[in-house]
Amino acid sequence: MTDRLYLYDTTLRDGQQTQGVQFSASEKTEIANMLDALGVDYIEGGWPGANPTDSEFFDHAPKTRAKLTAFGMTKRAGRSAGNDDVLAAVLNAGTDSVCLVGKTHDFHVHEALGISLDENRENISASIAHIVSLGREALFDAEHFFDGWAANRDYALSCLIAARDAGARWIVLCDTNGGTLPHEIEAIVGEVIAAGIPGDRLGIHTHDDTGMAVAGSLAAIRAGVRQVQGTLNGLGERCGNANLTTLIATLALKPELAALVPQITNAALKSLTQTSRRLDEILNRAPAINAPYVGPSAFAHKAGLHASAIVKNPTTYEHVAPDTVGNARVIPMSNQAGQSNLRARLRDAGLDIPEGADLAAILTDVKSREDQGFAYDVAQASFELLARRHLNQLPRFFDVERYRVIVERRRNALGEQISASEAVVVVQLRGQQVMSVSESHGQANGEDRGAVNALWNALGKDLGPYQASIDDTHLVDFRVRITGGGVEAVTRVTIDFEDGQGQRWSTVGVSPNLVDASFEALQDGIIWKLIRDGATP
Amino acid sequence: MTDRLYLYDTTLRDGQQTQGVQFSASEKTEIANMLDALGVDYIEGGWPGANPTDSEFFDHAPKTRAKLTAFGMTKRAGRSAGNDDVLAAVLNAGTDSVCLVGKTHDFHVHEALGISLDENRENISASIAHIVSLGREALFDAEHFFDGWAANRDYALSCLIAARDAGARWIVLCDTNGGTLPHEIEAIVGEVIAAGIPGDRLGIHTHDDTGMAVAGSLAAIRAGVRQVQGTLNGLGERCGNANLTTLIATLALKPELAALVPQITNAALKSLTQTSRRLDEILNRAPAINAPYVGPSAFAHKAGLHASAIVKNPTTYEHVAPDTVGNARVIPMSNQAGQSNLRARLRDAGLDIPEGADLAAILTDVKSREDQGFAYDVAQASFELLARRHLNQLPRFFDVERYRVIVERRRNALGEQISASEAVVVVQLRGQQVMSVSESHGQANGEDRGAVNALWNALGKDLGPYQASIDDTHLVDFRVRITGGGVEAVTRVTIDFEDGQGQRWSTVGVSPNLVDASFEALQDGIIWKLIRDGATP
Repeated sequence: MTDRLYLYDTTLRDGQQTQGVQFSASEKTEIANMLDALGVDYIEGGWPGANPTDSEFFDHAPKTRAKLTAFGMTKRAGRSAGNDDVLAAVLNAGTDSVCLVGKTHDFHVHEALGISLDENRENISASIAHIVSLGREALFDAEHFFDGWAANRDYALSCLIAARDAGARWIVLCDTNGGTLPHEIEAIVGEVIAAGIPGDRLGIHTHDDTGMAVAGSLAAIRAGVRQVQGTLNGLGERCGNANLTTLIATLALKPELAALVPQITNAALKSLTQTSRRLDEILNRAPAINAPYVGPSAFAHKAGLHASAIVKNPTTYEHVAPDTVGNARVIPMSNQAGQSNLRARLRDAGLDIPEGADLAAILTDVKSREDQGFAYDVAQASFELLARRHLNQLPRFFDVERYRVIVERRRNALGEQISASEAVVVVQLRGQQVMSVSESHGQANGEDRGAVNALWNALGKDLGPYQASIDDTHLVDFRVRITGGGVEAVTRVTIDFEDGQGQRWSTVGVSPNLVDASFEALQDGIIWKLIRDGATP
Repeated sequence: MTDRLYLYDTTLRDGQQTQGVQFSASEKTEIANMLDALGVDYIEGGWPGANPTDSEFFDHAPKTRAKLTAFGMTKRAGRSAGNDDVLAAVLNAGTDSVCLVGKTHDFHVHEALGISLDENRENISASIAHIVSLGREALFDAEHFFDGWAANRDYALSCLIAARDAGARWIVLCDTNGGTLPHEIEAIVGEVIAAGIPGDRLGIHTHDDTGMAVAGSLAAIRAGVRQVQGTLNGLGERCGNANLTTLIATLALKPELAALVPQITNAALKSLTQTSRRLDEILNRAPAINAPYVGPSAFAHKAGLHASAIVKNPTTYEHVAPDTVGNARVIPMSNQAGQSNLRARLRDAGLDIPEGADLAAILTDVKSREDQGFAYDVAQASFELLARRHLNQLPRFFDVERYRVIVERRRNALGEQISASEAVVVVQLRGQQVMSVSESHGQANGEDRGAVNALWNALGKDLGPYQASIDDTHLVDFRVRITGGGVEAVTRVTIDFEDGQGQRWSTVGVSPNLVDASFEALQDGIIWKLIRDGATP
């Protein structure tokens, strides 16, 4: 066996401890597939039995190359491992690999469990042995290990030895409270290995409470552990777990470390930024702008001296090349750099750029609209329409005269509260005025699809010669972000569309009025599709 | 002199290289005063002459205990230090302390400056000597030092020696590109000290491109440097500088390090969270939720097992106490939670838990509603109302009979497209039916505040005996998350409220209809406030 490092992802378990994060079972499946594509070795999927979503996820677990792992805790005192219903629920998930957390800090054995030190160690031993006897791979998460080592080294170590002797494939040293400094981790791991737990059976699990979870993990790896646990984007309880997104890039890109992670291919590494951003989308979070490697600003060179040197040679101010992780360099809008970027984007959209086109005016317009809340980097279709308007290449298919949306809640004949939505849209189409209406009357069970749905249906109901294109257009995602605080804030609505050929496009609308912002994005979506379909204005 | 560490803040200079950050002169003054109160030793205020705001700041520099420092670069080749106008502008700021950046990496001397290695070293030497000759304290920022050391150790070291011999008080080793790993920094610093630059004249300046800027700084401190540079909240070019907010807390709170920073008082440390948040306010940014020590989630305990232990003893899952840094513990509700978590939450909300209360039914309800899209961990007020309903402790102040919201876009008399919103709410209040209406007619300039604003105004317009409480309630944030894809998805609306006493609460509403979800959250917000104000049902 080569001396390689195993990557253990716990986004779906410890990552879900992040305040405000609650994955659905289908989101868990999507994330598991992303992790698998990235090349991690283990995917901890959750705690089956402890919450319905986790159980549902394991019931329909995706087939992954990575080992899908169920998480639970060591059996409770006073019953056998075979008779512990919590442990049984974990095993019932049927994963090849099972990770159990247990106490190794004497204080916690007394304080949280209220049992004797011997009983706790026996629980570890019996639980691990039970998993192994079922032919499964067993992992032991040694909770609070570093604090336990500081308080009672002999006891903490004896718990690791119990897990090792019971057959645990991995013994994971957890800095649960996140307070242990990297040099302390490095020293303690060295002592644990010297005491007889081999590094190739040791893992490290850190938290970011001192901002050093990645460094603590790396310190442990340098001291000899061969499994590292973390989460995508550093999700996790309190300040988060070790950020696996960051760790993977550093491991793969630093020459002295790269040999440890042959499982991370160049192609997978190139998907890192996209993977990170997709997770943020699932969480409806803006990406952390300054995140290492994958943040939108990770390769932004604002200082004048830096930017001019970068133009001569990118290695002057970049420790790695942005495209290795699928990210891009950002050089602030010197008009020069801005215009060449713009030219490339317009060409990508298939636009002719006439001689003497005022590209500076487009840049100014984009910048001023972005100041108002628009975000064109994720709404290529709306960006293209804006540029077409400047270049006089925007066909006029129809004009919206007016629309009206009514949302109401009232009692139905049974006295139940129901909500209902109704939309009327009036358009001018080849000299004709066309009025369309759509309604969705909700029952108490929530059949009402809401204002935006009603508006979309009314807008797309009767566009005459364009009807085939409209009917071919489907809304696949709809995101709302409030910029600024309170109800008086500005709303940005981003809508993703797809058509029958699998073509996808995204639009953006901004308004203090959420419905109006949605309408703008819907309208852009239709116009872009008509242009692509070569419709006659 | 005791062996103490000097804290050098560069928020106002390197921090301003953050993409999207541009301080005004008065903001710089406010931040300088905050830094001074925190207890840092140096405040780098900017580069006078290089940009007008920095010059303005120095012209009216605040009086601080900390040494205000002007930043610039070493003189250019082919002229004397006294005749370099860029350097003159830096000196003209009149600060007691001046920091100059210069090259120490041979590649950059050739590539960016295009001069000989000797010329560059002479520029360092002459520039530092010039500052010292004027009776000022000189600092030398050795740019790209660690990369330079790897490429040409002798040359990099000779530049440091030149600065030392010219009288630099501090020689700052900069990992400009952020790619050097902490153990490399520790080793190189050791070698630099062994080569004759004493640690009490050495500083460290790191960047977070591998997520290890704080750890790299700490590694250098352990190796002997006695000045550390960083920024509040980790602002800075690309991924940011070493986060001084994090570093200060770790230095002050870890027993083995605390003796190094006697200048950080307990009172100053308690202001750390407030200082961090104030900077975010100045930048109009949401705080990084998981920031070490100061993040809103830094002491949030979501996992059920953690929360139950925390109730028994907070040290079980906290490496430091939240109030030492002016932050607070959060125990959110979520489907991870167990009954003890629930009990603690209910007690915090001031609820009586009667004997035999069916807490399991509350948990089941929470879980099932979270599966529908609710998220109670960030909506404590809605959670409390849900629990009160179960415990028969939910007063009935009013009943909403019906509401209707109209949003329309049409042309005004000038033919301009405008949008407008109107809401009607009908409530039953002490046997009376009350109908309230609110409208906001937009001009082309976007005066329309939208459907939710209109609904809030109508709902809160005429609630008779409760009016004082309603008028005291303000919406401070409004967030929308779509769970699932497309327009048929379910919408979760979270609203944050605040009242005149600074009390804050958050509610959540879920519906396929965005307006209806908002209405639910608005209604919860009012009811919670009425309960807190002791209103009579």
